[in-house]
Order: sequence, then C-alpha cells, then structure tokens
Amino acid sequence: MIRDLDELLRKAKERSIRKMVVAAAEDKHVLKALQDTMREGIIIPLLIGDKEKIEQIAQSIGFVLDGIELVDNREGGAVSARIAVAKVKSGDADFIMKGFVSTADLLKAVLDKEIGLRTDQLLSHVAFFESPYYHKIFCVTDVAMNIAPDLDAKVQIIHNAVRACQGIGLENPKVAVAAAVEIVNPKMEATVHADQLKEMNAKGLLKGCIVDGPFAIDIAVNATAARNKGIGGEVAGDCDVILAPDIEAGNMFYKALNFLGGATSAAVVMGASVPVVLTSRSDDERSKLLSIALATLID
Amino acid sequence: MIRDLDELLRKAKERSIRKMVVAAAEDKHVLKALQDTMREGIIIPLLIGDKEKIEQIAQSIGFVLDGIELVDNREGGAVSARIAVAKVKSGDADFIMKGFVSTADLLKAVLDKEIGLRTDQLLSHVAFFESPYYHKIFCVTDVAMNIAPDLDAKVQIIHNAVRACQGIGLENPKVAVAAAVEIVNPKMEATVHADQLKEMNAKGLLKGCIVDGPFAIDIAVNATAARNKGIGGEVAGDCDVILAPDIEAGNMFYKALNFLGGATSAAVVMGASVPVVLTSRSDDERSKLLSIALATLID
Repeated sequence: MIRDLDELLRKAKERSIRKMVVAAAEDKHVLKALQDTMREGIIIPLLIGDKEKIEQIAQSIGFVLDGIELVDNREGGAVSARIAVAKVKSGDADFIMKGFVSTADLLKAVLDKEIGLRTDQLLSHVAFFESPYYHKIFCVTDVAMNIAPDLDAKVQIIHNAVRACQGIGLENPKVAVAAAVEIVNPKMEATVHADQLKEMNAKGLLKGCIVDGPFAIDIAVNATAARNKGIGGEVAGDCDVILAPDIEAGNMFYKALNFLGGATSAAVVMGASVPVVLTSRSDDERSKLLSIALATLID
Repeated sequence: MIRDLDELLRKAKERSIRKMVVAAAEDKHVLKALQDTMREGIIIPLLIGDKEKIEQIAQSIGFVLDGIELVDNREGGAVSARIAVAKVKSGDADFIMKGFVSTADLLKAVLDKEIGLRTDQLLSHVAFFESPYYHKIFCVTDVAMNIAPDLDAKVQIIHNAVRACQGIGLENPKVAVAAAVEIVNPKMEATVHADQLKEMNAKGLLKGCIVDGPFAIDIAVNATAARNKGIGGEVAGDCDVILAPDIEAGNMFYKALNFLGGATSAAVVMGASVPVVLTSRSDDERSKLLSIALATLID
C-alpha cells in the first residue's frame, strides 16, 4: 500500500536515472518543474525548442543550463514535438514531456504512423491522487482524453491504468467502475458497462486487476458506506483505481479532488510506447515534479 | 454571502415554526434527525406510519413522543406516503420528509395527479455545500434525480436551484454550467448546453440568476485558475450554483465533496409545491438536521 505520492519520488531515486525529452522547452512552468526534478536527480533532460527563448527563461528563473543537451528549433512547437518523438524512437530518450506546444500537436506527433510512438492501445490519462480523506494513493481515469468511451475503450483505459499501477509497484489493483448508483440500469450506460467489465474480469478476459461495480463514489472509497449498503467484496471501500464513466464525470471528480478536496495528483498519458507527461499550468510545482517521477517508473 | 451551513439553522430559528410531515416515520435515522431538529425548535413534526414500530424505535433512542401528533398506518410505506402528501395538500403540514419508504413510492405519491403536489416544474435535487476549500456555501444540482437532462430540463433544474437560493436569502445567484472544458465542442453536449443556457440568460429567458460557462470546475471555483486561463466575468471563481451535465458527473462530484473533500451538505428535492426532504442513511446527523432547516426556509 502506498500512502503518499512522495513514495513515487523515493522509488524514482532508487532507479537508474532516466532521460526525458521536452517538446518545446521554451515554457517557464516546464523549466521550473525541470529545475526541481533535476535537484532530485531522477532525470537527465534533453531540451527541444527555441534556444534563445529557452536560455532567456532559464536565466529569469536562475536555472543554469550548462551541460544540458539542447536541440535548437525555431520552427514552432509542432516541429519540436516531432523532433522529441523521434528522439524517443531512436532510443535517445526514455519518455517525453509536453512544453510550449498544444496538446493536439504533441499527440499528433506521438500518434504519427511513420515517426510516432503508437501502439495498438488507446491513449488515456492516468492520474494518481494523494488525499487527506483516503488511506492510500488511488488512481482516477480517464479525466482528460476520451470523451465518451465505449466498452472496448474502457477495457483499454483500465489496461493503461493497470500498467501504470504496475510501474509504481502496485500489483493487481482493485478497480471500481464508478457510476451514480450500485444497481445496473439499462438507462444508465455506466452501470451496464460496469456489469460487463466485472464479468470480463471474472472470466479472465480483463487481467491484472480485480474489477467491481457499478459503485457510487461513497461505496468505492468508504468501507462504512459500503457496509451500510450491504455491499461486500474486496474493492468496495478500498479501491486503487476509479474508472470514470466519461470525460465530464471524470474531469469534475478530478477537479473536485484538486480544487475542493485538498488532494495532490501526479499524472501521465499512457498507451503510447512510452509515458507522456502533460502537466498543465494550473498544476502546482509538487504535482509537476511527481508527474515526472511517475513517468520515470513506467517502462 | 453565506459562509457556512449553520447560517441555515440560524435563519430557520428566526422564522415562525414550520410543520413537517414524515412519511413512514418508523425509521431510526429519521427519528434521530427529528429529535435533533426538535431540540433546535424549528419544526413541529407530524408522524405517519406504524405506531407500534415508531414507539419502539423512539424508546430505543430516548425520544419522548408525548404531544407529537401521529397517524397510525400499518399498510406500509407507500400508503404512509399518500397520507403524508394529503396532509400537505390539506394544509395540515408545510413540507414533507421521507422515512422508511422507497424514494420511488414517495415520489409517486408526490407526483400523483389527483392527490399529489405536482406543479408544472420538473423535480430536481438541490444540494448546498459547505467546504473547507471554498469561501462560501454553494449549491450543486442535479446529482440524484434526472439521469441525462436535456436543455429544457436543465432550465428547470436551474430554476429550482434559484428558488432554493432565494429561500436562503441568496438573490441572483451565479450559476456555473459545468463541463470538462471551457470551449464549446459539438461532441460534448454539456458545452453546447452551457452556451445555450448562457445565451438564454443574456436574453432574459432564464431569470433570477447570472449564468456562465462552459466551465471546468477549476474555473468555476478558483479565481486564480480563471485568471490564469484568461476567463473573466462575475461567475468564474465565485459561483453559487454548479449545474452538473448529467447524473454521473453530478453524483461523482457530490460524493467527492462529501467523502473525499471534508464537505457537509444539506439537500432538498425541489419542483413540487413544497420541498421534499430525502436524507439518506449515509448522511451524517448534522447534514440531516441542516437539510430539514433548509426545507423550512423554502416557501
């Protein structure tokens, strides 16, 4: 059981150092996160982007670039993203971080059939949370990429989450399929999917995890609530992964935790051949550092 | 601005005392809530249900029933619900609380065309929250009744929330229409609805409130996040009401606040001719008391 996200940083320090390529590094928030991360000694960065701008920003935040590899590109973020992806493909970097480039342009490069890092898996966002109101870290997915995943997409989203869990040493995670109620209702697709996913898991068609649901959030995270409603099993009240029904539910839940729940998160995009770190401006410094630490743990 | 839910209790005490009918009062949790509420002097109860069971439970929790009006009914919760509804209709009670009867049976009685309390409004659930992470109480709707409301239903859900806000003295509430993103995307119905609701409000077709959105939750509740993303207006970072896209998103958000956010809520069902108090077993004592206090404030 992992109690807090700092454990990710401790684990990252125990591993051999990883090389992270930054697509369009001319971004103050990203360079600050990099500065913090390098202090922890868990990554060697490789910067792609506008050298002049990168140097300017680095100077303004007191980040000494001496000895850091930099590929100068003044043709914009989309091109930097393609160069970054190529660096991973050629083995010059272990994973990738988004800088001053749109998510769309970065993912376009990642998914490019020729130069990209595409696998047969769907891309999905996997976020780990540390909350003052839960006894261990837990994962929420997908809150950012797949708008209304169908059953097959949900299988892949769970698979990506399981892989991320394995990366941090959490084997056989307990997956709660979230909904508004605990009873399967044909008018509520989330409950039907939950039932199907649970059955696939029971039949061995969805491996590496224990799936249960449909669960409203109280059942997923609170053992007393589960007991009061007579819901047993290993997952209720002790889940490691919460699968959101769709992007609205996932995103509102994610942001409730971060903005109205005193929680901290670390997140990566899974499903390409390497993890992609997509921190946002509104993430705090610790969250960005922990997201990079998380990525170093996933092979 | 109302900073905490105790303000509802203070306001309730300033009003003339209200009469609350309890449908199927043979329920330990409900009788406990009643006991607390009577101590505060904000309601006179009228109990409908199985007299023997009610007396047994009352004795077990040390609740003295002397002087409390009770209509004995041993034909079950559904009949108690009909009697309770009739009591409101005849003017013998001001509003109604659910006891040991299914929500479906209670609402069937409330919505009955002949004896019921139906209006031309949709029924919807309105919950007020006090959170350690927000500067005032705020309302979230609809997290429990309408599965996938269309635009017209959302207009009515907002109207119900506005009426509840007016009840607690909050005029012209700021309504944030929640989604996963701030940009209107035809593939995301929540964002399209947000845009339409905002326009209806601007044209005076949706009155008594200020509507803005689509907003992800960070934009709705956090002024810094709104500023960082360049989103202005009165609602961003200071909303009073959060309209959820659908029941999954609403319910997950509601339960994130209650079970992973240290928040307390008070809730009523609006849209009938009187408020309906529907507390659940998993609500804590304070939440049940505050829900009753909330109902006393709504005419």
